[in-house]
Order: sequence, then C-alpha cells, then structure tokens
Amino acid sequence: MKRIYLDHASTTYLDLIVKKTMDSFWIENFGNPSAIHEEGRVAKKALSDARLSVANSLGAHSDEIVFTGGGTQGDNLAILGVVNAYKALRSAQGKPHIITSKIEHHAVLHTVSALQKEGLPDQTYFETSYVGVDKDGVVDPRQLKELLRPETILVSIMLANNEIGMIQPIPEIIKIIRAHRKKHGAETPFLHTDAVQAPSYIDLNVLKLGVDLMTVNGSKIYGPKGIGALYVRRGVRISPLFFGGGQEKGLNPGTENVPAIVGFAKALELAQKNREKESKRLLKLRDYFIDGIFKNVSGTVLNGSQEKRLPNNVNVSFSGVEGEAIILYLDAKGVACSTGSACSSDSLEVSHVIRALKRPYEYAHGSVRFTLGKRTKKEDIDYVLKVLPDIIKKLRSISALDNDKSRYKKGR
Amino acid sequence: MKRIYLDHASTTYLDLIVKKTMDSFWIENFGNPSAIHEEGRVAKKALSDARLSVANSLGAHSDEIVFTGGGTQGDNLAILGVVNAYKALRSAQGKPHIITSKIEHHAVLHTVSALQKEGLPDQTYFETSYVGVDKDGVVDPRQLKELLRPETILVSIMLANNEIGMIQPIPEIIKIIRAHRKKHGAETPFLHTDAVQAPSYIDLNVLKLGVDLMTVNGSKIYGPKGIGALYVRRGVRISPLFFGGGQEKGLNPGTENVPAIVGFAKALELAQKNREKESKRLLKLRDYFIDGIFKNVSGTVLNGSQEKRLPNNVNVSFSGVEGEAIILYLDAKGVACSTGSACSSDSLEVSHVIRALKRPYEYAHGSVRFTLGKRTKKEDIDYVLKVLPDIIKKLRSISALDNDKSRYKKGR
Repeated sequence: MKRIYLDHASTTYLDLIVKKTMDSFWIENFGNPSAIHEEGRVAKKALSDARLSVANSLGAHSDEIVFTGGGTQGDNLAILGVVNAYKALRSAQGKPHIITSKIEHHAVLHTVSALQKEGLPDQTYFETSYVGVDKDGVVDPRQLKELLRPETILVSIMLANNEIGMIQPIPEIIKIIRAHRKKHGAETPFLHTDAVQAPSYIDLNVLKLGVDLMTVNGSKIYGPKGIGALYVRRGVRISPLFFGGGQEKGLNPGTENVPAIVGFAKALELAQKNREKESKRLLKLRDYFIDGIFKNVSGTVLNGSQEKRLPNNVNVSFSGVEGEAIILYLDAKGVACSTGSACSSDSLEVSHVIRALKRPYEYAHGSVRFTLGKRTKKEDIDYVLKVLPDIIKKLRSISALDNDKSRYKKGR
Repeated sequence: MKRIYLDHASTTYLDLIVKKTMDSFWIENFGNPSAIHEEGRVAKKALSDARLSVANSLGAHSDEIVFTGGGTQGDNLAILGVVNAYKALRSAQGKPHIITSKIEHHAVLHTVSALQKEGLPDQTYFETSYVGVDKDGVVDPRQLKELLRPETILVSIMLANNEIGMIQPIPEIIKIIRAHRKKHGAETPFLHTDAVQAPSYIDLNVLKLGVDLMTVNGSKIYGPKGIGALYVRRGVRISPLFFGGGQEKGLNPGTENVPAIVGFAKALELAQKNREKESKRLLKLRDYFIDGIFKNVSGTVLNGSQEKRLPNNVNVSFSGVEGEAIILYLDAKGVACSTGSACSSDSLEVSHVIRALKRPYEYAHGSVRFTLGKRTKKEDIDYVLKVLPDIIKKLRSISALDNDKSRYKKGR
C-alpha cells in the first residue's frame, strides 16, 4: 500500500541534495577538525564553511553559531547556559526569574521545571512564570509584560508551536523586553526562541526577529538527525551543559560531527531559500484540507487559528473520539499522522498544548495533527478526505457504545 | 600524493559495511521511533534491534544501554549522572568523593574539575583524588586502594589511554573496589571506564571487566560520529544532563538519531568480532614500527611500555625536537599523525599524559603519536620509517640554532 506521510513536524526524510552534500564526509573527508594535518584541515575548513552558511541563513555572524546535538540540546544549552552564567545576579536582585509559555516543547518546559527543583532544600532557586495563550494558541504580549520583573533573566517563547503550528509574536515580544531592559538599565532579560518547526516556512533572520538566542534543528527540515545549532548573540554569555575538549568554544565538547554539520547547514540553507515558494504551495493545500475536513466531518474544531498557523499544519479535534484511535485507523489506511507531539504520544494524557487552549472536554481527547511536507500532493489530501469521514463515523459508533461515559461526552 | 593516515585514535573513516547498514535509514526508514504509525514502528524496531546488538557486543542487557551523542557526552553522563543521583549521601558520610587518574581524557578530567568548582562559595562541594601512573603510564591499583574513602561514590579510570595506548588494569581495580564496598557495606563506589579507544582491540564484556558504567563511541571504531553509548549496570541510578522528551529513559532526550544508532551498533559489532584477528595483525606491524624507529633514530624513547599497549598505538618522543614540527613535516610527506590528543593539539602545552610519565624535559615536547588502523599496511610503515629519520635530523639541526634555549635542552 502506498504510504501518505503527514507527520513532517515529527521528523522528516533526508533531502537528496543534503544526502549528496554529506556523501564525501563519511569515508574520504572524514578527518577530525582539531588535528593539524591535511585530513584535519580539510575537516576544519568544512566545519568553518558550514558555520558561515548557517550564520548566513540566520543573518548572524559565524562566531554566534554553536553546533549542538539537536533541538533538545539547543533549548537546554540556551536555558541552562544563560541561567548558569547569569544566576550570580540573584544576590543583587532577588531570585533569578524565567518566563516561558504554557505551550512550549518539553525540551523547554522540562528544563525550566528542573531548574525550579534545583537549589537548596526548602528554597526554590529559580522562579518561573508561565504566560498563557489566547483561544487561538497565541501568547498574549500584554500578559507577558505583566510577568516581567527586574530579576527576569530569560524569556523563552517558541517561534512556531510544534503541535498546533501557531506562529508566536516574537517581534512584539522583543519590543516589550527591550522597553523593560531600558527601564531597568539592564542587559537582561534575554529572549530565546525555539525555532525548530520554523525554518521551512518563516524568515529566520535574527535581526528582524530580534532574539538573543535561537534553537534550530536538522531533523525537521529534511536534514540529518542528531544535529542542530544554537544562535547566541554576541555579548550573551552561556555556560556549557557538559565538559571535555574545547570544541564549539567549550559549549558542545566532543569530536565534531562534520558529516551531519555539513548536511544540516545545507538543509537550513534550502529551507530558507525555498520557504516562500513552499509556504505558498502548502498554504493552499492546507486550507483545502481544512475546508475539506469541515465539509465532510461534523463535530470538528480547528485547534488554533487558521491565519496565524504554519502553512504545513492542520490540527483538528473531533468530538467524542480519541485521537489515538483515529491515528491507528488512518495508519491502517496508509496515512501517517499524530495526536500531537511524538514525544508525548506514548501517554494517553491530553497534550499540554491542547489543554492550554481550554477546549471543551469532548474535543480535548480527539486532536489529530497532520503536518504536510515536500512530498505532499493534492491527491494525498484527497485520499485522506476520502477515508477520514468513515473512520470518524465508525469510531463515534463504537464510542456511543462505550460504557465509560465519564471519559467524554457521547459523540454525535 | 598518496596519504598515509596514522591518526586512527583521533577519528576514523566510516566502514563501508557500516555505511550500507545506515543507508536505508536516511530516506526510506526515516521515522521517529516515538510515533505510533508504521513509519514510527519501523524506526522503533530498528532502535530496539540496535540496542540489543550493542548489549550483545558488551555482554549486557538491552535496558543497560543508553545511546548518547558520543564519548564526551557518555563520560559526562556517567560522572555527573552518578554524582548527582548519589550526592545526597554526603549528608551522612561527608563530602562526596571521586577518584580518577591523571591520564584520563579531558571529557573526564574537565568534568571532574567542574564538579570541584561547583557548590557553595567557600566550600568545595566534591572532593577529588587523582591516582598517578607508573613510569609506563599504568595506574597503580595499590595507590588507588589508599585513596578510597567511605564517601567515595565514583572511580573513573579509562580502559585504554588515547595518547599512549596503555591498557589499564580494570579487573584488578574492580576487585579492590568490591572489597572496599564489602568492608563498608556500601553499594558505592561505582567504577566507570572510558572505553572509547578500546573496542577494536579489547574484549568489552562488562561482566569480565566488572565495570558499573562504560563509555563507548562511534567515531573511533569506523562508525558514525556524534553517537555512542553508555553502559549503566542495572541498579546504578543516574541523573540526566539535560531535559526534554522521555527518550533513552530521559537520559538523552531528543529525537533518536536512528541512522547513526544503527551504524554505531554495526561498527561496535564488527569491532568486537574482528578484534582478535586485527589485534594480531596490528601488533606485529606496531612492533615492527617501534623497532624500526629505534634502529633508525637515536635519542628516542617509547612513551609507555610496549607490553601493556594497544596493538595500534605507537607514541614516541624524540629528544630536543617539538612534536608539532615533526607532525607538520610528516604531513608534508603525506603522513597524518598527531602530537597526542587531537583535542589539545591547538595548544603548545605538553600533554597532561606525557607529563604524568615524568619524562625528562628534553623528551617531553617531542612526543608523536602514530595510531594504526584497518587500512594500515607494512608498506605504509616502511614509508614512514624511510622519511622520519631525515625529518628528525633536520629538525634537530634547526633546534640547535634555536636561541630560545630555555624551552628545551639542545638536541643531539
């Protein structure tokens, strides 16, 4: 059976051009960039070219790019790195304070909560505030403004959400932060953004975005897995997560993964180069998909707004049915999609992102995320629109027979 | 010019079989193991097969294998992971104590020294003892025994040194540790070993070695870079270095790098499978090489003993010449080798490993490491033996003219 892959936000296949870019670095140009012989120098040149390429893709300087082991490590390096480098400020101004949103990826949320647990007994070392989202899943900058304190050292708000695809108002947020810094004559808080879902669709120019730190990642942009980069604006100090050789200015020690770095740089370049054209193509397809679902399946809601959404994201809830069951039925029909973040798909809990939208309970369990990508064509969407209504109908008929009424209201 | 690569301890080219093993995981079987659809299940199966393969290579259970981003991350996870999970013990027994050796890789030494700096002002949180080595570069187990305290929670001694190739007496060390545990009725100290240089030459069966934690790595065994594994014996608790999704039981969160994991498992399997045959072949070649150097170049010492040495390692010092200069001249003749660890080759400092051997000063600066590998043939060694004497002669004549006599005694 032909497979239709609509889970690009979870991970992507490697782009053929990226694969070819990596090809010579496995066996021929395999050297260690720290070695001073020719094999080392060839690797060092490839590394420095890749760093420049990533810098160019982000409108940054080469020395502002730190290669990481991926999005999770990047988010952790940004958050733990900044708070560890600046926590000494607490003595002057009270407990260091962090602001993040309720819809961040676990790589941000779990890192922040680990910081809350750290520190001395009977004392929360770091304080954290969580900014909520409006009914569309967008952070309210005015609410963020109220949460800012003189001792806030970091604000971490994602550029685009991984589950519902909502693009967050980063340029508005940095304006508020800059005004706050000015008022207090401070260099903090810094603004970090997790841009892991964004490169194929949003301009990542760091000057336009105004961010101080930004996480990008290979595995969602048709690049290799296990590789990413953290942009760290000049002047922002960060501490390492772990220790070893001096690679990446000591911020990601260990022999550099040159094949992956070279591939990641190419993937990021292609993502930014093709993003306008690909966004236009997918936006049309996405809206066609959403319209089709609403036409064919009653009791459906779109999670998040249609306007502020990544061009490749469709996240819908069907009243009275479990998302998990829909996924499995679609999978049997050859369609790959997810209930939300792959990282939480092992759990039957409602995703924290859907929860933040404060949906009525009968919709909360029924969320399904379709994320389109390079290979997605209109005929794929037509196929899904053909099989989906019967699946929902069937599941609702089962659900109506379910005795465990407490779990959700009866579906239609 | 044909290149002769004798820097396998720095990094290796990818094995062709390993490359083929990875091939289908880039574009066809690219899924995220956390996803529940078919693409996810295929990836999950590959991940679990690879974990079993690594476990088999080490004589361990699958649930004792944590995939990491490489050797540095593995060493850090072992050390920081154990001390963070067990540091609460300090309140009962005094400051937690760590023992390591003076010849460890920086991934161990810098991690341990970071722990010493941690903690409250005016208080060293962790205490560390460094066991020295004998004139051969081998840890003395009796000295280690004297350093053990009731509050020692971790001993980290490498299996084979990366610079001088000395194989450390791990089975003797664990005997001493077990006796110490028994005497104090304690489950600690645990024994960690960095086995990054060992898989192609030493039996890594964890039961025979007796270790509690062991770091292995892809990039030195003809596997992919940016990937490795940490063996964690059942019953040993460790804390994560960073936070995110629950991958690798929360110990290495982030989308699993399936192509690299699959390739690493294959590389480790091949290393252990071929180690006896390859050790025999290289041992002969190594001894032929060492003999040749001593015959052809006077004023030469072997760093470390010949007997307790990895079959692929030759580390020699030439009196009165800088190792760095030898490397560059050899490089110009087509030979790639190093002064010691690639990680410290940016610095002109004498390596901490050579320093631990307490060599006379005129030899300390002249160390050169040749590390043989799969591709190395007798004709390669013959070529090096042909060009090396002239290079040393030339450098000694320059060195004799060097005005900066304070740096080293005049060479011959």
